Amino acid sequence: MKAAIIGGTGYGAVELIRLLDKHPFAELVSVISHSQGGKGIEEVYPHLSDISKIQMDVFDIQKLNEVEVVFFATPAGVSKELIPECYRKGIRCIDLSGDFRLNNPANYEKWYKNSAVSSLYLDKAIYGLSEIYGEEIRDSKIIANPGCYPTATLLALIPIIRKGWLDVNTIIIDGKSGVSGAGRSISLQTHYSEINENVKAYKLGKHQHIPEIEQNIQKESKGFIEELDPKVTFTTHLVPMTRGIMCTIYGQLNDDSISADKVVEEYQSFYQDHPFVRVRPYGTWPSTKEVAGSNYCDIGIHLDSRTGRITFISVIDNLMKGAAGQAIQNLNIINGWDVRTGLLDIPVYP
Amino acid sequence: MKAAIIGGTGYGAVELIRLLDKHPFAELVSVISHSQGGKGIEEVYPHLSDISKIQMDVFDIQKLNEVEVVFFATPAGVSKELIPECYRKGIRCIDLSGDFRLNNPANYEKWYKNSAVSSLYLDKAIYGLSEIYGEEIRDSKIIANPGCYPTATLLALIPIIRKGWLDVNTIIIDGKSGVSGAGRSISLQTHYSEINENVKAYKLGKHQHIPEIEQNIQKESKGFIEELDPKVTFTTHLVPMTRGIMCTIYGQLNDDSISADKVVEEYQSFYQDHPFVRVRPYGTWPSTKEVAGSNYCDIGIHLDSRTGRITFISVIDNLMKGAAGQAIQNLNIINGWDVRTGLLDIPVYP
Amino acid sequence: MKAAIIGGTGYGAVELIRLLDKHPFAELVSVISHSQGGKGIEEVYPHLSDISKIQMDVFDIQKLNEVEVVFFATPAGVSKELIPECYRKGIRCIDLSGDFRLNNPANYEKWYKNSAVSSLYLDKAIYGLSEIYGEEIRDSKIIANPGCYPTATLLALIPIIRKGWLDVNTIIIDGKSGVSGAGRSISLQTHYSEINENVKAYKLGKHQHIPEIEQNIQKESKGFIEELDPKVTFTTHLVPMTRGIMCTIYGQLNDDSISADKVVEEYQSFYQDHPFVRVRPYGTWPSTKEVAGSNYCDIGIHLDSRTGRITFISVIDNLMKGAAGQAIQNLNIINGWDVRTGLLDIPVYP
Amino acid sequence: MKAAIIGGTGYGAVELIRLLDKHPFAELVSVISHSQGGKGIEEVYPHLSDISKIQMDVFDIQKLNEVEVVFFATPAGVSKELIPECYRKGIRCIDLSGDFRLNNPANYEKWYKNSAVSSLYLDKAIYGLSEIYGEEIRDSKIIANPGCYPTATLLALIPIIRKGWLDVNTIIIDGKSGVSGAGRSISLQTHYSEINENVKAYKLGKHQHIPEIEQNIQKESKGFIEELDPKVTFTTHLVPMTRGIMCTIYGQLNDDSISADKVVEEYQSFYQDHPFVRVRPYGTWPSTKEVAGSNYCDIGIHLDSRTGRITFISVIDNLMKGAAGQAIQNLNIINGWDVRTGLLDIPVYP
Repeated sequence: MKAAIIGGTGYGAVELIRLLDKHPFAELVSVISHSQGGKGIEEVYPHLSDISKIQMDVFDIQKLNEVEVVFFATPAGVSKELIPECYRKGIRCIDLSGDFRLNNPANYEKWYKNSAVSSLYLDKAIYGLSEIYGEEIRDSKIIANPGCYPTATLLALIPIIRKGWLDVNTIIIDGKSGVSGAGRSISLQTHYSEINENVKAYKLGKHQHIPEIEQNIQKESKGFIEELDPKVTFTTHLVPMTRGIMCTIYGQLNDDSISADKVVEEYQSFYQDHPFVRVRPYGTWPSTKEVAGSNYCDIGIHLDSRTGRITFISVIDNLMKGAAGQAIQNLNIINGWDVRTGLLDIPVYP
Repeated sequence: MKAAIIGGTGYGAVELIRLLDKHPFAELVSVISHSQGGKGIEEVYPHLSDISKIQMDVFDIQKLNEVEVVFFATPAGVSKELIPECYRKGIRCIDLSGDFRLNNPANYEKWYKNSAVSSLYLDKAIYGLSEIYGEEIRDSKIIANPGCYPTATLLALIPIIRKGWLDVNTIIIDGKSGVSGAGRSISLQTHYSEINENVKAYKLGKHQHIPEIEQNIQKESKGFIEELDPKVTFTTHLVPMTRGIMCTIYGQLNDDSISADKVVEEYQSFYQDHPFVRVRPYGTWPSTKEVAGSNYCDIGIHLDSRTGRITFISVIDNLMKGAAGQAIQNLNIINGWDVRTGLLDIPVYP
Repeated sequence: MKAAIIGGTGYGAVELIRLLDKHPFAELVSVISHSQGGKGIEEVYPHLSDISKIQMDVFDIQKLNEVEVVFFATPAGVSKELIPECYRKGIRCIDLSGDFRLNNPANYEKWYKNSAVSSLYLDKAIYGLSEIYGEEIRDSKIIANPGCYPTATLLALIPIIRKGWLDVNTIIIDGKSGVSGAGRSISLQTHYSEINENVKAYKLGKHQHIPEIEQNIQKESKGFIEELDPKVTFTTHLVPMTRGIMCTIYGQLNDDSISADKVVEEYQSFYQDHPFVRVRPYGTWPSTKEVAGSNYCDIGIHLDSRTGRITFISVIDNLMKGAAGQAIQNLNIINGWDVRTGLLDIPVYP
Repeated sequence: MKAAIIGGTGYGAVELIRLLDKHPFAELVSVISHSQGGKGIEEVYPHLSDISKIQMDVFDIQKLNEVEVVFFATPAGVSKELIPECYRKGIRCIDLSGDFRLNNPANYEKWYKNSAVSSLYLDKAIYGLSEIYGEEIRDSKIIANPGCYPTATLLALIPIIRKGWLDVNTIIIDGKSGVSGAGRSISLQTHYSEINENVKAYKLGKHQHIPEIEQNIQKESKGFIEELDPKVTFTTHLVPMTRGIMCTIYGQLNDDSISADKVVEEYQSFYQDHPFVRVRPYGTWPSTKEVAGSNYCDIGIHLDSRTGRITFISVIDNLMKGAAGQAIQNLNIINGWDVRTGLLDIPVYP
């Protein structure tokens, strides 16, 4: 299957290149970069020397004739312009940006401060949280690949929400992210000397992953709650590392009689056919390094009988399960390939 | 004033040495180390070459004749054995460990898994949170210097608790700490290759700072709440840096009409005579690097009208305001010196 | 081909596990650990949860009946005891430790402060620098897998030494290593707070890689120099990162007329059939991150006409080309498989 | 003494602010920034909240009427324009940039790719390596504060060069620097995700510190060597830390009979009246963290009898002894104050 990547100079793209290189059924035929068109990829990424001879190109729909799937690893606001063109040409689109994630255009406009894509196309997009929405992903032409924080959060929350055990109005998500999540565009915020030996909170109350998380919590909690619009508190922090996200998620149980064992059992059962989610034994919690370079999402659970609160520790590699890895997983799903194809790598440890 | 340090090889001790060296009214005359007695301090800490010629010694109460104040920078379980001896000799004790922080011996035994010190001495100890309990600290002979997480947490919470604006049963504290908080004792947990490029959660539900925080929340919330035993959820994380603690603290407001401006104003007023607490303008949040090497505690506030929750971002240097710096601040208080004496240094940035 | 790993709890072993897992022709059947025998591997390495169910075992030659190749990822002094047993049983041995690297037992005794293995076995060992000694490796039963620094150094030096262009009496090697090279054993030297924000020189004049480098420089320079015992200056530094080694190597050219272009051309030609060595275009130099997680050795060259000196920048991932990766490369060689088998991964960037 | 800083938004300036704040005899009255004029300093550097109320200003010589000394913490090319103005006004200038360091204008033009300042002013500048040229510094009006690498290098080399024990034609300097040396201007080179877990060599053969080092080696070696133009090999590397420089310096001894003890003794004697240079006992070497936040330069020595080469390990904090700290030291010298005034701080460890 011939694939193209749009947004070729960012970290999402370079991770897609790494993964497509080892994928047995997909072949990368084009890398498109607005800013670096014409350059050889190894000029921009010397670690690809001798590996890829692809010349980067600027976008031109005519040149995508043989391409069957396009990955968008673009900043917000780009894919909503280009996906309609690709869609009309019959090319499947997997969008790593946020342009197609929010069903309600008003929400996009509020949080992204930009006009939304036409409903004509938005309605065709499926939210690509692979383990949860695999069925719908299979037949979709436009996949809105989830954000990194929402992936870690929703995989941890959906099983308990579906059971109706959690008071969804009490959810607090404390996210810690490595700096690669901010991309390769330079800024004072990501200047080495400002980040190293530092923890920073950022975008309190303004992060565009808030509506993405809420939309899916709402969808999953229908039937259990009267109020259909649960709001979360979501705080993001930059920590001095390159890769990895941890979401520490807090919520109040609906019922004091739910035991830790019961929750763990439910999670292990929920994910038993999903090889990329690993539920840790009770009393142990995953660290971000334990999934680095891999497509795993590892989840640890703590239940505090003193407060009736449950805590989830959910970790992913933000560039893998939080971006390129899940995109490849979705590629596998739409093609009916084993979900693990090209994604079997063990975490790189230490 | 002649001072001694017990526990001379740890990071708390070495920070005390740094601070006492520049303190105009205190003189370090003895450094006591169980394991390194007999060695010159520059053998253990080469960065002190040419600076300190002190020979480390093992503990012997007879040798402390001229000492007027002793700092305990010892692991849990040591000061409870030695402080009674010092106290009887009339030496003032500032204890950086947790042995004298919990008023209720049963609590100490439960969380520290060790027998508590006799009430005879425990009752004489004052909890040394300088800005809050300065009055009582002034006359105390035994100061239980607060833990690092409780310092960052309580300075952020006490003003709002005293106003009665916070539902103290909803407090969730998400702590992120640099690794120096774990001390200089080697372990796989603090092995470089295990910590670097990693975020780890640890001691969920078991951290000994939980009862320390709860005891003081309870004390401060008396009069406002019926239930006198509020429980907090407290999760600690190691992040890959040496110094710094951030506590991100969440809670539900009691009253929707409280505005962000009102809270910020209250905090600025509360701390106006306390130079080491800096309340940030609304909409900005401190990062740990902004207090590194200094005795500041910086607090940022976010109020989310969608959820009625307030979020505090509180940062300190764990070895300074979270340990040695606050200990010196308490030394200043008990001597009636300006609280800033020897502590005026601007954060070391970047 | 059935394989076993001895020394199962170290970082070398865990990297071998990662590589064998994706190797199409090799199967890991046993992991032996002196200290953790009896434990499941995921207890020691939680990142292997759900991946490997191997139970670690203590060494027992009887249990290795079906094993055809054993990797030794052991500290110095272990393989010299166990390899003779394995050898007599007909098992091929790939030794990642230094026990079989020095041809002269007296050298081993001097630098390793330990008695050398009997010449009976030492003489059968081949120094496993894959690109250079592939022919001899093919038929060897005992492969002394090179050290990390010697790999980066010798791959950079051997082409120019073989041409006779370098004054081998002027070689100075300045090595910078990530901390994983020191292994997983805990020590104050590798304690996070001591390493972070720090560069340290260590073992000046005493590093056991000195005789390993000299032995091979001597071997390669025979025929060009009268004096057959060139000595190098070799300084090693720990830098605050987990993976990666850079050797910056200095030497005086024998002849002023040798141009930079000629050297680069010679190197590109020397390594044209060796996919894991990438010679960078003149005027660019590789960084350690550009080979992270991969088996590449990247080499940059600088020639200073002002001084007549040449500088090589040679980088590897110390756990890959500097240990486990080269071990798998040697496994491929002895089996006549394509040298890239199981090693095709692109560097993990960033 | 009233002081101004020009170049107020860089790391050199912010370190000067930190030092001037604690200096008993100097007062900072003006901070000048081309890009941030008009802003309060705490807007640009929130860690200065509540500490400094200085408003930044653009340069205007009229406003410097009361100023007696100006520190230039500007990029190359700025001070050469402004110092003549200040000089004519009778203001003493301490220039942290490279504009006045090279005596030979042709050298400046070659290495800095810019026109040199007029000899009228250049000839008045004194190279401010405090320990070495204190006499001349005392009476100078323009001080060319040394570069960070040259400081670490020259303090290590000058004693042995003055003795005539070193073959100055064999000097190789391998420098490792923290990233703050590259300043606060953003670039892909200093983007967090590119630097973290990475070691990079940069500017081989092109670093503007090469002629600065050579000029002073030449000056110091006059009388010992025939050839008056010794050339060094100098390689710089970025390592993933914020502060600190280590120079590992190699050279051939002129005479085999010189013992390690003799060298160490010579160094200790050379620097006995210079409190900021600490010569380590033979067999131990300093690490960068051991001088962090302080004005020390620590030097370790290794002599290899196998090769007749000597190795120096010289470390400084690049923002302190390598920039702002040495500038304050020079301020002390020109005023006849104790050289340690305002610079007594112990390194911040860990």
